[in-house]
Amino acid sequence: MTFKKILDVCEKHGFVKRIINKSIDNDAVNKLVKIGPVGALLQENLKTEWFFSMVINRENTVFLSKDSFVDTYEYGKEICQEKLPFGIAEIKEGIDNVCGNANKLFDFDKYFMEERQLVLRTTMFVAPSKSIQFFHQWQRQRKMWWRKFSAAPGKYHLTDISTNNGCQNVEIKAEYPWGSHLIESLMLLNDLHPKLDSQQLQAKDGRKKVQAHHITSDISLSSMVLNALCDAYDEVPLQNESRSLLRLHRKLTPYKISFSIIASQAAVTEELSQLALYLCRKLRSDHISSLLLPSATKNSLESQYRHYDQLGIPYTVVLNENTLKNGIAFLRSRDTTLKEQVHVSSLSEYVQQLFKNY
Amino acid sequence: MTFKKILDVCEKHGFVKRIINKSIDNDAVNKLVKIGPVGALLQENLKTEWFFSMVINRENTVFLSKDSFVDTYEYGKEICQEKLPFGIAEIKEGIDNVCGNANKLFDFDKYFMEERQLVLRTTMFVAPSKSIQFFHQWQRQRKMWWRKFSAAPGKYHLTDISTNNGCQNVEIKAEYPWGSHLIESLMLLNDLHPKLDSQQLQAKDGRKKVQAHHITSDISLSSMVLNALCDAYDEVPLQNESRSLLRLHRKLTPYKISFSIIASQAAVTEELSQLALYLCRKLRSDHISSLLLPSATKNSLESQYRHYDQLGIPYTVVLNENTLKNGIAFLRSRDTTLKEQVHVSSLSEYVQQLFKNY
Repeated sequence: MTFKKILDVCEKHGFVKRIINKSIDNDAVNKLVKIGPVGALLQENLKTEWFFSMVINRENTVFLSKDSFVDTYEYGKEICQEKLPFGIAEIKEGIDNVCGNANKLFDFDKYFMEERQLVLRTTMFVAPSKSIQFFHQWQRQRKMWWRKFSAAPGKYHLTDISTNNGCQNVEIKAEYPWGSHLIESLMLLNDLHPKLDSQQLQAKDGRKKVQAHHITSDISLSSMVLNALCDAYDEVPLQNESRSLLRLHRKLTPYKISFSIIASQAAVTEELSQLALYLCRKLRSDHISSLLLPSATKNSLESQYRHYDQLGIPYTVVLNENTLKNGIAFLRSRDTTLKEQVHVSSLSEYVQQLFKNY
Repeated sequence: MTFKKILDVCEKHGFVKRIINKSIDNDAVNKLVKIGPVGALLQENLKTEWFFSMVINRENTVFLSKDSFVDTYEYGKEICQEKLPFGIAEIKEGIDNVCGNANKLFDFDKYFMEERQLVLRTTMFVAPSKSIQFFHQWQRQRKMWWRKFSAAPGKYHLTDISTNNGCQNVEIKAEYPWGSHLIESLMLLNDLHPKLDSQQLQAKDGRKKVQAHHITSDISLSSMVLNALCDAYDEVPLQNESRSLLRLHRKLTPYKISFSIIASQAAVTEELSQLALYLCRKLRSDHISSLLLPSATKNSLESQYRHYDQLGIPYTVVLNENTLKNGIAFLRSRDTTLKEQVHVSSLSEYVQQLFKNY
């Protein structure tokens, strides 16, 4: 399993596109990846999950800042009646300096063309008396978050705390055969914030006036896409050969459901295609991202499964001649390669249940 | 109801922030709006709904393009085995020219500082034999989409088709007391695409080779935020005065649920605050964006309701002394101002049902 091999599979299926000649040696893969259409959907899902975990589903209120960090801080402080803790999440271009040390580069970022990547940053303002405890809890939560979506959760770990100019820094790294990659940077600062003065940082810990400490999480969005692909990549032995697939988490995968049709007669194929189209539209209207390709009726089942597995699609709906008689379709799992029976009338409901939980 | 009055309410509640002195006359409101933290959540929800309607829930497959339109087109064409129709959705900076006419400005865009707004563009590639029909259907669908989220759906209408250099153009406009605003621009072009040559546009209509026509929808994201706010703004008479509120659609509103606590004794207030915190976290973990403010225990119910109504929050959970005894809370509706009883144990489930449908 090499990075180049993973990129080969991902490029074949529209996750990424490399820009210069692939035949050049491995190191020249640097700075030459663009996000393809399937990768764009993956990125959208990653951003959505980040948004849920950082903004919607926080114990404390987190405000989303778009045009002005300071305005958002002032609004948040006022509406919280100055009570700590509260937070601010931002989606911003490039990393500016919180910590006083040099700009930190996320390891996967070096594979991208653009100089200024989108950074997802969350800053929590907390009372000094609770900041250390909060920082430790935050580290655990963030590590758990990466592990939740991983096909091999053991690869994520926290580094030791390093201290620099009064700033405590912990990194979340992912271990790959070709090296260790920084994917999230966590910082605790008890000094001034680069954009807020000491007056602005005054807030309340219960009834006491204090100067808020701030804890920051930085993630690069593009890096997150490459990391998700490398994390999900797996090779399984199959009849004397090794077959690659992407074990993308069900919440992240660009397409949740694909379709395969098996029939010998053209008329039956046509009827099953209509049924597949109907089922696909039903799933889509229930917010399940589904892929119905013209190849669903043409290629062999084996080659279709290989294609769908490499796209990271968790389930394939298999329709055959009997489906027209008894309404029973099969749901083939990417991870187990087993099939289970589902009646077409309850397909969408059943699939929604499958994708509901993490 | 004037635009300035709407901006006053929206600025008070963190939807937008005006940048220069408000005391200047109305016209100078031009070019001076930033999106605030509550507006940023509204924008996120608008983008999500656009993404669902344009990418996930389409009858035909639509690919999301991030780094390269042409690469996405080539990938989509290949995976669809050149079969029309298919589409491409993009979130891009600024409007480039599809139609040959001068850059069209969305009316609400002029209130924003930045010169280059984010544009949500969808391009459908369709067979020439079906393009006119598709274009008409698309117009109806898009008009319906705007109406679906509107508090007063009648304000959205389609303009007549105007033809310019072989490009048919239809606009969706919203009528306000102060004028008519362009909010979406739809185009049908049967000529070359600015980024694709005639060779690339060759595709299949059934078995026939044809040169694809393309149909485009352009929406400005920032304009969509201001439009949603103006659309939702309403004034209702209340005891000899007029009270303003935002009737934001339940899918768009930044916060779905807020909390109010009524109790005379401090100990009871404290206990109810703990319950509210528990319920708020439960709702948030079920992906329901909820707002629990320190003011929930302090301000009068009337002033809390006014605040929440102006934030566009559809329901407020009201907890009182009896809630501690019998577990019954009240769910107060923004739109009807009526309250219904809900047991705290089934609150999250009930609220999820309320927000499930459109």
